[in-house]
Formats: sequence, structure tokens, C-alpha cells
Amino acid sequence: MTPVDIASEVIALERGALDRWGHGDPLGYVELFDEDVTYFDPFQAHRLGRIETTALMQSVTGQIRVDRYDMQKPKVQCTGDVAVLSFNLVSYRTDEGCERAISSWNSTEVYRRTPRGWRIFHSHWSFIRPELKDANPEAM
Amino acid sequence: MTPVDIASEVIALERGALDRWGHGDPLGYVELFDEDVTYFDPFQAHRLGRIETTALMQSVTGQIRVDRYDMQKPKVQCTGDVAVLSFNLVSYRTDEGCERAISSWNSTEVYRRTPRGWRIFHSHWSFIRPELKDANPEAM
Repeated sequence: MTPVDIASEVIALERGALDRWGHGDPLGYVELFDEDVTYFDPFQAHRLGRIETTALMQSVTGQIRVDRYDMQKPKVQCTGDVAVLSFNLVSYRTDEGCERAISSWNSTEVYRRTPRGWRIFHSHWSFIRPELKDANPEAM
Repeated sequence: MTPVDIASEVIALERGALDRWGHGDPLGYVELFDEDVTYFDPFQAHRLGRIETTALMQSVTGQIRVDRYDMQKPKVQCTGDVAVLSFNLVSYRTDEGCERAISSWNSTEVYRRTPRGWRIFHSHWSFIRPELKDANPEAM
């Protein structure tokens, strides 16, 4: 596989999981997680491992609705059997004919090639420029 | 090198860059960036590439002060020539004898082995559970 082929395949896998996610089915992600997956999102107090991540996904099953998403500038950086997919994601919902953005994300998905196909072994989701309560954080 | 050796080396590199960062010198990170580095932090509107990331680092030179940091549960996941380091980081500053936490992070650093040593080719920094102005975000 060329890097271009790998990029296409990994982006297609991610889109497949996002499509299911938007319909309230996070198990598309669970199926992509490798056994040692580690996970960050902005709602957790610390990094999660596989058991916790799977439980989290199961707990939100049926509770998500994304009517449209925009995966912006997906980039895949390949080294050997690892492909790092990064992108910005804006999610939209339409209610009473009115579409609005409900969230925007910095997203990192680290895939590795396995005998069962490409699998995610590290996942990091965070908000793009969150509007903080404390308007003047000492950032660094 | 065994996975344990790789983990030790990568964590030591990261600590070296963090030590310099805390003293107002982000160039420790710049020296670790590989040519194709990509970068997320919560202050940027989108993913940065190498030129933008380097400019960002140069722009904050001398403006950072971290007196102590706590790298929590660093984990290194190795596949071939790639090592994914993830950790939580709490940064502290001491003023007038009083130490306080100034920021807490989810941190992902994706390293690859190069002829010049281990180098970062993707970096993702985000806040742990940011306190949002809108207390009820439609998260997903």
C-alpha cells in the first residue's frame, strides 16, 4: 500500500465510525479500538484505557445525534505500520429546519496495521478554542 | 532497544523539553520536532504545521514560567519505529511562598525514530475538563 492508499483507507474507517456515531451508535469506534487503546476527551479526569473507554462508549449509546459533520483537512502521517490521522471536526444538528454547529474538535487518531485491519491504539479529542469560564487562564 | 528502553528515552526527552519550557525556553520542543510535525493546542483555530508551530514557540519565548510540573502516569505505546507518549500534566507556579496549579493537560506526543534520535511528528495538547462558559455544552 502506498501512503495515499493508507490515508484513504484510514479516513474511510474514521468516517464509517463517525457516521455510526452520529446515529447514536458508538460501537463503530469500539470495533476499531485495538486491545491497548488509550483515550483522552475533555470530559474525563484522566486518560482512559480500553475497558473504561468501551464502557464510556456503551454508556452514550443512543444518546448522540449529529445530523452532519465536516471533517476538515484530514491528514495522515505514515511511519511503518502506524498511521496518525489528525483533523478538525465540526458537528451540526438540524432542529425545526435550522442547522447549527453543536461542537468543534481537534482530533487525533493513531492507527496501527493489524492482521484484522487498521486499528486505533490512541485517540485524543479536544475542543477547538473552548470558551472558558475564567476568561484569562494562565495558559502555560 | 526494548520497549522499556524506548519508554525511558522518550520520557526523558519530553522531560528535558518540559524543563526548558518551564524556564521560558520552548526551543527544547522545537529541537524535538520532526520536519512534518503537526500540532494541536486549545488556543489555535486549527491544526498547525511545522512553520506555524515553530513561529508559535518562538513567540512565547521568555513568557512562560512553570516552577514545578507533575507528569502523571506517562505511558509509551511502541509499534515499530513509532512511540506514542501520553500523559496528564499539572503545572504549578509559586508566588510569595504559595504554590498553586496553573493548568492541567491531556498530552499526546507521537515520536518516531530518526537517524538524529527520537523526534515528535504529532503533538496534541488539551485542557483536562475545561470549565466552559456555556455550562451545558451539547458535547457530542
